[in-house]
Amino acid sequence: MRLATLRLPGGRTAAVRVEGATAVELPAADVGALLALPDWRERAAAGGTRHDLSEADPAPVVPRPGKIVCVGLNYRAHILEMGRELPAYPTLFAKYPEALIGARDDIVLPAASSAVDWEAELAVVVGATVRRADARAARAAIAGYTVLNDVTARDYQYRSAQWLQGKTFEATTPIGPVLVTPDELGGGDGGPALEITAELDGETVQRADTGDLVFGPADLVAYVSAILTLRPGDVIATGTPGGVGHARRPQRYLAPGSRLVTRIEGIGELVNTARAEGAGDA
Amino acid sequence: MRLATLRLPGGRTAAVRVEGATAVELPAADVGALLALPDWRERAAAGGTRHDLSEADPAPVVPRPGKIVCVGLNYRAHILEMGRELPAYPTLFAKYPEALIGARDDIVLPAASSAVDWEAELAVVVGATVRRADARAARAAIAGYTVLNDVTARDYQYRSAQWLQGKTFEATTPIGPVLVTPDELGGGDGGPALEITAELDGETVQRADTGDLVFGPADLVAYVSAILTLRPGDVIATGTPGGVGHARRPQRYLAPGSRLVTRIEGIGELVNTARAEGAGDA
Repeated sequence: MRLATLRLPGGRTAAVRVEGATAVELPAADVGALLALPDWRERAAAGGTRHDLSEADPAPVVPRPGKIVCVGLNYRAHILEMGRELPAYPTLFAKYPEALIGARDDIVLPAASSAVDWEAELAVVVGATVRRADARAARAAIAGYTVLNDVTARDYQYRSAQWLQGKTFEATTPIGPVLVTPDELGGGDGGPALEITAELDGETVQRADTGDLVFGPADLVAYVSAILTLRPGDVIATGTPGGVGHARRPQRYLAPGSRLVTRIEGIGELVNTARAEGAGDA
Repeated sequence: MRLATLRLPGGRTAAVRVEGATAVELPAADVGALLALPDWRERAAAGGTRHDLSEADPAPVVPRPGKIVCVGLNYRAHILEMGRELPAYPTLFAKYPEALIGARDDIVLPAASSAVDWEAELAVVVGATVRRADARAARAAIAGYTVLNDVTARDYQYRSAQWLQGKTFEATTPIGPVLVTPDELGGGDGGPALEITAELDGETVQRADTGDLVFGPADLVAYVSAILTLRPGDVIATGTPGGVGHARRPQRYLAPGSRLVTRIEGIGELVNTARAEGAGDA
């Protein structure tokens, strides 16, 4: 099953089920609200008003997650090629919901930063309330997967030892366009093994396999839920592979007009254009 | 004006105005919901059902902030005594709302950690929606101040370079008992200059003056609002002074039965007993 949140005329949003080129409206304002219903899987199978997906404007698939937990340093091949050892524990940091944008929205380049970079990521969306989950409960708590680009202001990220301020600029982080349930994506206990890419102005700058994660989706749900309760709609961004602009020589960053395409096989793609803060603001 | 959120019979909570030994119930479920009303200052002055404060059970003063932004390394005297230079930018990290507890609740010591430490802090509660605030707008956006103890699992904090996982264990961070509006606390542009202390089993372990912050409350509101929108009920924890247990020789941590009192002159005190996870859980 494929779910999305669409912006509809009149300023409202709705959760929808995606069937080919059609979106079937569901009785919830967004996918976050849908997942909060204990019987969301049944509700998501219901019939409703049909919309033409080609004319749809995708909102962030979960517009206001209660928590966004991000993971650093999690692609095995990239860690090893950097000459580092595989970590014993995940590196966790946060992002606030104000950072999120839809799958076709502009990335707003903060006027204060001159080093805005890309980080293509597989994101896990939680579909149950779960605490101290074992492996089985962790797998069952995953509603599905989506695409996220953890767009990062590198100058702010490194202003202090803690990355948060570079990770959470308003309207920088696309998420969507759809949540895809695990049964559609295959993969074993390590989660789905899917090609993930980022393209900048048509050039592929990141390419990896989500099966290469050191800490897979269920590992992360279990680990985080040992710290605090995960709830429906919470998002875990699982980390990015090599190929970010900051590590290139010369370094490369987003500029006004840059077109960033973030794609995961079997899920979908984010297509976002960067623009300067202030340009085109309502 | 002094505001609190009380747990009342029947499982509900209410925002209240504190007048001496009396709490006057206000038409909002908690202080966060109250602050979300554009005319909250007028609403907070209204009359309502009166409760005896001595019998009251304080909930976290804002039970579910949209954001909790924490600041590290912010007391001038402590930075200088450590031989460090004053920072050019604040160090920011996050905590999730699941960490919060009320001013008299037990601190739940995670079974997984053997190094749970205290960090007495002045917390700012935001009372307006604000983005790119200048100094004046930042001051006006502060609804008031409260007491927070940023209780930290040091072993988890240092498992990776990012502190988040040691900062956000469920039910570890007391906040309250009251929000006090700025007019009651004095202080200039640097915010109120108040004695802040932490006592562990009756021994004073931290003592400082909140006027010694490198980045004061309005500075922090301005800085954070340059990154993203701050909203009513958001909390900024302004950092802790010297005297934490991890920096002592020998190191000291909370143990089951430890009584931690966190007090700020003119605001009030948190009185929390530590207990082992699982002991006394419902």
